[in-house]
Amino acid sequence: MKQFQEYYAANHERFVSEWKDFLRFKSISADPAYREDCLACAAWVTRHLEGLGFTAELWDSATLPLVYGVLPGNPKKPTVLFYGHYDVQPPDPLDHWQSPPFDPTLRDGRMYARGAQDNKGQVFYFLKALEALGAAGADLPTIKVLIEGEEESGSEAMHAGLDGWSDALKADVLMVCDTGVIQPGVPTVTMGLRGIAHFDVKVFGPKVDLHSGVYGGVVLNPLQALVDVVASLHAADGSVAIPGFYDAVREPNPEDRRLANESPIDTAEMSATLGVQLTGGERGLPVMERRGFRPTLEINGIGGGYQGEGNKTVIPAEGFAKISMRLVDGQDPQRTLELVAKHVERLAPEGSRIEVQHRVAGGPALQLSVKSDVVQRARKALFESFGREPVYLWEGASIPIVAKLAKVSGSEPLLVGFGEEGDLIHAPNESFSLRQLESGYRYVTAFLGAA
Amino acid sequence: MKQFQEYYAANHERFVSEWKDFLRFKSISADPAYREDCLACAAWVTRHLEGLGFTAELWDSATLPLVYGVLPGNPKKPTVLFYGHYDVQPPDPLDHWQSPPFDPTLRDGRMYARGAQDNKGQVFYFLKALEALGAAGADLPTIKVLIEGEEESGSEAMHAGLDGWSDALKADVLMVCDTGVIQPGVPTVTMGLRGIAHFDVKVFGPKVDLHSGVYGGVVLNPLQALVDVVASLHAADGSVAIPGFYDAVREPNPEDRRLANESPIDTAEMSATLGVQLTGGERGLPVMERRGFRPTLEINGIGGGYQGEGNKTVIPAEGFAKISMRLVDGQDPQRTLELVAKHVERLAPEGSRIEVQHRVAGGPALQLSVKSDVVQRARKALFESFGREPVYLWEGASIPIVAKLAKVSGSEPLLVGFGEEGDLIHAPNESFSLRQLESGYRYVTAFLGAA
Repeated sequence: MKQFQEYYAANHERFVSEWKDFLRFKSISADPAYREDCLACAAWVTRHLEGLGFTAELWDSATLPLVYGVLPGNPKKPTVLFYGHYDVQPPDPLDHWQSPPFDPTLRDGRMYARGAQDNKGQVFYFLKALEALGAAGADLPTIKVLIEGEEESGSEAMHAGLDGWSDALKADVLMVCDTGVIQPGVPTVTMGLRGIAHFDVKVFGPKVDLHSGVYGGVVLNPLQALVDVVASLHAADGSVAIPGFYDAVREPNPEDRRLANESPIDTAEMSATLGVQLTGGERGLPVMERRGFRPTLEINGIGGGYQGEGNKTVIPAEGFAKISMRLVDGQDPQRTLELVAKHVERLAPEGSRIEVQHRVAGGPALQLSVKSDVVQRARKALFESFGREPVYLWEGASIPIVAKLAKVSGSEPLLVGFGEEGDLIHAPNESFSLRQLESGYRYVTAFLGAA
Repeated sequence: MKQFQEYYAANHERFVSEWKDFLRFKSISADPAYREDCLACAAWVTRHLEGLGFTAELWDSATLPLVYGVLPGNPKKPTVLFYGHYDVQPPDPLDHWQSPPFDPTLRDGRMYARGAQDNKGQVFYFLKALEALGAAGADLPTIKVLIEGEEESGSEAMHAGLDGWSDALKADVLMVCDTGVIQPGVPTVTMGLRGIAHFDVKVFGPKVDLHSGVYGGVVLNPLQALVDVVASLHAADGSVAIPGFYDAVREPNPEDRRLANESPIDTAEMSATLGVQLTGGERGLPVMERRGFRPTLEINGIGGGYQGEGNKTVIPAEGFAKISMRLVDGQDPQRTLELVAKHVERLAPEGSRIEVQHRVAGGPALQLSVKSDVVQRARKALFESFGREPVYLWEGASIPIVAKLAKVSGSEPLLVGFGEEGDLIHAPNESFSLRQLESGYRYVTAFLGAA
């Protein structure tokens, strides 16, 4: 262990410089305008793996390529498949950033950049841990790496190709470092992820935008239909008011619920950090249950009509809402999507038309077991690295492809990451501290070194 | 009358060319980026009035200048004050235009451009009628002209200065050509205009945009609060569900209601033209009453969160809706605005904050009398020009400043214009036909020639 800490200290400056190189790529997968940046980023990852001794290659796709690499190791040890992503969320609103999102800036020991944590930071400490293990001549298992470029926008290439890749991906452990710790300094094993599905609601009214004086009171405003329909999707108690939405939800077992509610998360502090009360989701359930075990339906964006300065008195021809759902154990993304879409399209009031477009069934929820061998091995590595037992966390976020990837590769997922509340992933001023980077490096060296 | 038709025919080409010059100015008052274009347009109008023998000048203001001109005439005749505006609505969505909005294009006898009708086209035929009357040596009354530059964005300079301009504006008749005919070829006197007030609703949630997985079900989504609050402003029957909103509404007298409902407007045809059923406003009332005598509350724009391609799974920090109200006889714009704003701000659910911003009390509604002297004189001029009795129309649109202008100038308003349904004002592909232009010219020469 000590030798890895020394290696980190000796190479720290180079690590930071390489990390910045990785963060400079504007690898925004959701926006086709950044395709070239995504390709350049994938090429950088490929070269980096080769530098570590991997046989690495780009897997082309109809959308964005994946980076695949293999580093052959001790065949008696359980093969590890590492999964991560090189793409990032769009950075807007740009004017909220203190330093530009793709000009990585180190301030007070934190690296500020889009992707600093999610997922480039966490991929990067994995790579540097491998470098250290290699330099130490560690007896490693065979390590496979799959870094995709569309995790933030539906993992299209993964979904399309995965079933054909079982041989290449065959492994025993699926290692993912895309999660967080429950509190700074508290090593955390993520026991559950929510699934995800998303879609756009488009409401159509008159053929063209109309004068709101001449036609106000005459024609139904499609934005009125939009807010009526979208508002109706929730009941007053915060639950989703779509018949059948909760039918397939599997209740957590009492032990999981107990562990989740024992969480050391300080909700008062969370509320203070966010600047808002924690009034989301279903009334009457504790925060940790709402996040870990309950599905949601959220409006991620809404738009229509005039959005500029001043006012334009128009009845617009159309409006839209972008909606995503977080799903829990038992809910099938495709079936839930169809249920919701059918319900929403039926709600169109007379004088409007509703289409549910861009339906994406991202992936189902994931539930692990505290007793599994791989979770126990992670527990041991974390205890050795940090001198304390880890906490078990039921996350609210999704890594849509993990469940499917585990199935196809025949491996057991292991979700340990070092993200923190204050990293502000998906938001302006995303960051990841050097302390977090080193914690991740420490965990990976311990886990793989002992593997 | 014949001589004016000959004058029109002889000068037709020059008229079209001058009209195009007027339409090329991007005089979009709602967007400060077009300030210089507005100033250039005002200067063009001033020069044009001078060319007609007016003493004309720009009245400066804190926002955009007004054009004022006087053409002294027979002092025994009732002085006419003509009011119009040189500003136009923003042209977006730009990609819906067949030819660019500020590159006026004549196709099949129609001029396509932003402002082709509203209000540049209708101001232009007034100017050309004056030119013809002058060339014929007609015995005209004193004519005053006031062309403002902010009719589409709240008439700020007018509101600020009007009370001080009573002397300069003193007149007997307030002539406005900013309305339309009830059907192509049917001369129409507008007997009522709705008032207007508008505001923005801003909803605030967490300090920054948050990850919808990590915080979905934890934090209330401000877009959820936005749609809930905005949807709640209407009842299921289409009426406005704000306590007190209708309290001051003065019911139309039975004669007005009868004349309004006798309107020859073919609602089935209107519905076909618009591509939508006429399901707006309060259920159970006829279309003409909903438009002429009932107030509305319309969402002119809505926005928040991610609006780009693909999806960004975010709980945004804020969202907004731009709302305007059309007001009817009895409703005070300022008082209604305060009533509604207070109601909306109180609706903020726990975990969100609502602010009603950019409150603008545009102006009250206007109601005329069929028996008034000026309406009867217009009736006569229209009968002479078109060989048929005009129709009386209660309009849904607003010309916010007309009521105040009538009061300050001591004049009686006269609203006759030649806009048509198909002109698509405020929308892409706005147009005004040469036939409409000539109709307006004919009416103005008849009315002022006999004045």
